[in-house]
Amino acid sequence: VPRIVDHEQRRAEIVHALWQVIAARGIEGVSLRVVAQAAGISTGRIQHYFRSREALVLAGLDLLIRRAVAAYENTAGATPRDRLLHVLVQQVPRTEPGRIGVTVWYAYLATALTDAGVRDILSEALRVGEAECAGHIQAMRDVDDGEAHAMARRLLALSDGLTLRVLVGGLDADRAVATLQAEVDAVAGTDAP
Amino acid sequence: VPRIVDHEQRRAEIVHALWQVIAARGIEGVSLRVVAQAAGISTGRIQHYFRSREALVLAGLDLLIRRAVAAYENTAGATPRDRLLHVLVQQVPRTEPGRIGVTVWYAYLATALTDAGVRDILSEALRVGEAECAGHIQAMRDVDDGEAHAMARRLLALSDGLTLRVLVGGLDADRAVATLQAEVDAVAGTDAP
Repeated sequence: VPRIVDHEQRRAEIVHALWQVIAARGIEGVSLRVVAQAAGISTGRIQHYFRSREALVLAGLDLLIRRAVAAYENTAGATPRDRLLHVLVQQVPRTEPGRIGVTVWYAYLATALTDAGVRDILSEALRVGEAECAGHIQAMRDVDDGEAHAMARRLLALSDGLTLRVLVGGLDADRAVATLQAEVDAVAGTDAP
Repeated sequence: VPRIVDHEQRRAEIVHALWQVIAARGIEGVSLRVVAQAAGISTGRIQHYFRSREALVLAGLDLLIRRAVAAYENTAGATPRDRLLHVLVQQVPRTEPGRIGVTVWYAYLATALTDAGVRDILSEALRVGEAECAGHIQAMRDVDDGEAHAMARRLLALSDGLTLRVLVGGLDADRAVATLQAEVDAVAGTDAP
């Protein structure tokens, strides 16, 4: 079915151009015209794939989450400790593409504060991430659901806050990663007396 | 000097209207016209106080930080533990005005990712906050500067991440506060064996 593949690939190319625009100008800088320019196609062509600015913006968030889920699913053969660490560390920007990805993610987080559509999608992604992490914690330690979720939430919140400090506070990415590794080892109990 | 007082008060009123606009529409929704409307004055009148949209947006961040600093300075007579907890907990939204304040703060954080002027102001505020918290930790525990800063950064990052989850992830504000209290007590050593 080559036409469907082409359609999906062209949509993905447009979303990549959207991410570049968001990383450079924020979501406020997004218009179909600006994204078409960044993608090197006409505004009419972009409307063939996305009906409106709103539809394009939501598709950008959807693909961002699907990429993160795919990268996580690639760790399926790893230990619970390493899978937990993957979730916590994957957003810390250590490369330029990584920085663009997490800049776009935080732009969506800020938009979620005032946009219920974006908030619902993000809130669900956070819920799924917390449940996955809680599962890995329970595979390492004998704790009940409530405690595992509280530990997962604490680790994920710490990862969010450290990532923000790498992005705007001048924190070194390697130090953020080292902090998260130490926290995971503490939760795993490998540094317990 | 009543005219200077009036001038400062009118500027503050305009900034309050700006915050309302940011909380409702994000920074992307800000224009001098929209803020003038929210403040119930003419666009010409607003230009008497703020030359440009950019100047108004930066003044909004400046007043947000000065208010937070003033609230912190009001805790000058409290214990190091309580002053540290104040810094960590003050941003967790427990009231509607609190929610507006922190929504505006996160809107500025997202803008900082793509706006160097906003990033410089925020980065400095984060640096000062970390130094204050590190000082309180050293008043409670015998740790060196580097370790105190690392502990402060970890607590502040956790507060940022939990706050974000209260705003968009459905986390209960009281649970976020209870988590932060437990962390401060652990750092203070009051729950040590």
